[in-house]
Amino acid sequence: MKQLYEGYHTQKFKKGETIFVRDYEPTHAYAIKSGVIRAFAYTPELEEKSVAFIVKNELFPVGWLFSKTTIALFYYVAHTDCELYVVDKNTFHQALAADSLLAHEMLGHMVNDYVTKSLHITALEQSRARLKLLYTLYNFSLRYGTSVMKDVIRINIPLTQKDLASFAGLTRETVALETLDIKKDGIISTRRKYYIVNLTKLVTAIKEDDLDFQPKIAG
Amino acid sequence: MKQLYEGYHTQKFKKGETIFVRDYEPTHAYAIKSGVIRAFAYTPELEEKSVAFIVKNELFPVGWLFSKTTIALFYYVAHTDCELYVVDKNTFHQALAADSLLAHEMLGHMVNDYVTKSLHITALEQSRARLKLLYTLYNFSLRYGTSVMKDVIRINIPLTQKDLASFAGLTRETVALETLDIKKDGIISTRRKYYIVNLTKLVTAIKEDDLDFQPKIAG
Repeated sequence: MKQLYEGYHTQKFKKGETIFVRDYEPTHAYAIKSGVIRAFAYTPELEEKSVAFIVKNELFPVGWLFSKTTIALFYYVAHTDCELYVVDKNTFHQALAADSLLAHEMLGHMVNDYVTKSLHITALEQSRARLKLLYTLYNFSLRYGTSVMKDVIRINIPLTQKDLASFAGLTRETVALETLDIKKDGIISTRRKYYIVNLTKLVTAIKEDDLDFQPKIAG
Repeated sequence: MKQLYEGYHTQKFKKGETIFVRDYEPTHAYAIKSGVIRAFAYTPELEEKSVAFIVKNELFPVGWLFSKTTIALFYYVAHTDCELYVVDKNTFHQALAADSLLAHEMLGHMVNDYVTKSLHITALEQSRARLKLLYTLYNFSLRYGTSVMKDVIRINIPLTQKDLASFAGLTRETVALETLDIKKDGIISTRRKYYIVNLTKLVTAIKEDDLDFQPKIAG
């Protein structure tokens, strides 16, 4: 995708800046050159419920870009300082139609997100807080993690307990309590806002609660 | 996609038959010629938690077909009697690489599912049972519904209360109670296992609980 974006203009956003407001009609999409975007909705109680992190080379808002919706379905904020490519809808589709390798690569991105969202759904459908949190950490490790040594993964997105709560469908207080236990068990440690995950211990902990579980992502 | 599949062999499955078992390594994928497939996981309490309905022309298991996982992430069962095209992984990717229109069409399918999954996530993140159920019905209306008269949608998938419960992250008992209320309000009616939805009333009901909500899907 990188080649596609190279000629595009970029815009910079500071951490915390709102990029799209839900129900607003975008005039263009963005692709991420650097930084992380978070998509979320509000509950009636005005709690933030996160739907996705969007990372390098990924596009948003996808539903609008592919004409499935006329408006942004979520709020999009800069989770870190960001530099974004400005993506014109028509130019983008002309490029896709002309280049099957590009379309194939784009498909790969979408499938990644499809799998992530499927796993997010199963995490949310768990009834126990500990299991929701363990699954959320597992998903983040697979999707946003890099191996720092054998079986040890660093999740490359800065995460507060509030962020974890908003993805796992839990309150911040519950996440704080469960995190204490999970740290005590040696499953995670934190350095500033970055989580370091012991994948073997995480998988073992999930298996203790969910006998049906098997680690499942290739590569 | 239809042209792509036309030369492929088909297999028939009876309602209730299991097509893939979770953690099993598929040897091929399927595309749907007719019928509906349901993908689900089990909770530790062995309740079924549904992730997706897969409908005409759609493929599964997508994560495996695009080499994101080596195994099926979910259980796949025939939700109705089905006829399925047998899709060979290599043949499929050769066809995609050779035909950008096909890749583009496939992208459209994936984006549909991406939007559906995003909305499913926000439904699950609601804390109130009524709102979870209303959002689930709303998502099903948009994704699987056809208009039978102005503002009236028929969801074209047979649904039991257990099915609704397994998508909304609720118990069957809660769905039974909430459904009574929603029927009384004239938001839905059922004919055999098919739900008829009054979209205006549904949207009004969601807005009463979620002031931030706006109806949002084009087409």
